[in-house]
Amino acid sequence: MSQKKKIVQCVPNFSEGRDLEKIEKIVHVFRGKEGVKLLDYSRDEDHNRAVVTVVGEPEALKKAVVEAIGKAIDVIDMNKHQGQHPRMGAVDVVPFIPIKNISMTEAVELAKEVAKEVSEKYDLPIYLYEKAASTPERENLAQVRKGQFEGMAEKVKQPDWHPDFGSKEIHPTAGVTAIGARMPLVAYNVNLDTNKLEIADKIAKNVRHMSGGFRYCKGIGVELKDRGIVQVSMNMTDYTKTALYRAFELIRIEAKRYGVNVVGSEIIGSVPMEALIDTAAYYLGLEDFSMEQVLEARLME
Amino acid sequence: MSQKKKIVQCVPNFSEGRDLEKIEKIVHVFRGKEGVKLLDYSRDEDHNRAVVTVVGEPEALKKAVVEAIGKAIDVIDMNKHQGQHPRMGAVDVVPFIPIKNISMTEAVELAKEVAKEVSEKYDLPIYLYEKAASTPERENLAQVRKGQFEGMAEKVKQPDWHPDFGSKEIHPTAGVTAIGARMPLVAYNVNLDTNKLEIADKIAKNVRHMSGGFRYCKGIGVELKDRGIVQVSMNMTDYTKTALYRAFELIRIEAKRYGVNVVGSEIIGSVPMEALIDTAAYYLGLEDFSMEQVLEARLME
Repeated sequence: MSQKKKIVQCVPNFSEGRDLEKIEKIVHVFRGKEGVKLLDYSRDEDHNRAVVTVVGEPEALKKAVVEAIGKAIDVIDMNKHQGQHPRMGAVDVVPFIPIKNISMTEAVELAKEVAKEVSEKYDLPIYLYEKAASTPERENLAQVRKGQFEGMAEKVKQPDWHPDFGSKEIHPTAGVTAIGARMPLVAYNVNLDTNKLEIADKIAKNVRHMSGGFRYCKGIGVELKDRGIVQVSMNMTDYTKTALYRAFELIRIEAKRYGVNVVGSEIIGSVPMEALIDTAAYYLGLEDFSMEQVLEARLME
Repeated sequence: MSQKKKIVQCVPNFSEGRDLEKIEKIVHVFRGKEGVKLLDYSRDEDHNRAVVTVVGEPEALKKAVVEAIGKAIDVIDMNKHQGQHPRMGAVDVVPFIPIKNISMTEAVELAKEVAKEVSEKYDLPIYLYEKAASTPERENLAQVRKGQFEGMAEKVKQPDWHPDFGSKEIHPTAGVTAIGARMPLVAYNVNLDTNKLEIADKIAKNVRHMSGGFRYCKGIGVELKDRGIVQVSMNMTDYTKTALYRAFELIRIEAKRYGVNVVGSEIIGSVPMEALIDTAAYYLGLEDFSMEQVLEARLME
């Protein structure tokens, strides 16, 4: 049998959300390439930012991402950029996400290869972040991006903030880029039959990592005004270690204390098959179950 | 974007479970073919039967299946065949199963095309069965196969049992073959914390179609002697209409009447992703969820 095909995802964020022609030039790089598949892209005018979701085999994807970064540097000038979303470069952030038959270590390696290549090819300074970070301070993207494009010329010169690749000078029009590796995010919200935001807020504090909850869960309370209810809105940052059903059940348990019920939940955007199959396996009490039994897992080998 | 790739499964059953060389000759047909993937094969000496699981794109799979049927006719002589499993031909039964981006109607069409081609090419009479059946009496494979190889020479001559394709003479060494289309089967068992087989039997009667239960569920009680427990052993014949979780929950409810608890469940062999994702969606109360959100579903397009 042939070796199992490795699949990695990349979700580059570009600092252009208004000029459709420019966005199209960047996105088009990912079309019609063997071993690369453009899954989705979206733009936001207020954020002035476009987010592309692409998957592929590591080598093919690497080439395409390097090419797209070059295209973005060509068409975006950060000196003219305004938008609500924090940003530090024309290509703001480039995460690689292991999907199938590929380890996090390999995804980190891929991120570093891309970082090295684009820093040399385009004279673009790169910070490695999250799982690819070279120091604990660089793991958190918000920390890395602090100061934004306008502050980066100074920041890259600080001893603690020398870029991981490239020079201590920002790119004059493209600024700085963060490249890294992370697990797939699952945006998961649980809805409650109350309109009291403070209840959702309190429960969010119980489930999220920051305030004592699950290690791989971020969460806040959110009002759904049109439905007259509230929700605990979460980002599950590693569903293999903090399972979706565990967050769901904990919220149900905590809601009881307020006489409130869970009325449903929702997944926003994409979710890896395994996150939901793991959930099914829990509720059915499946014994000796292996992901290899899932027909689609076999088909993708 | 390109058209979505159609994927169909085929699980041909061959009447040879002892001679490894002969089995290998048949199985080998499915190897190294573009658009065809051999997922699994198993043989049983007592049954004297081999079961092959293969998936692929319709045209490529059709060609491979026709070739494998030819190979089996070459190497198997039913006049010498003995085994515990009922059988009527060298290639006993060939079900096509729609997996991805393909309808049951298309799978039926594919079954008929294969039936026509092999009947002409190898002078092999064919009964169409299950969803491809030409009469209600032919839907059930057991009915079609009644009389087995030894009785087929007579059966094909009866007006009610003229083959759907081919002549009213059996193939002298290969007998008759049933070709059809069906939904994927899920072999699903629910374990109970009692050693009383009669309880599993009674519950099986409540869930299975035959005795008043779910339309797409077959079931019997089974003893797991080594564990000292019993189980309701089921075949879910259409998980899109009779969901796994519904059978699970009903068994839990029925077990209560005997003071018995469900201790777990198990899936034997392969299961389509959707059967378990549907289960997760139920227990999490997912709102507005679409299979398109599952990353792997997108990757297979």
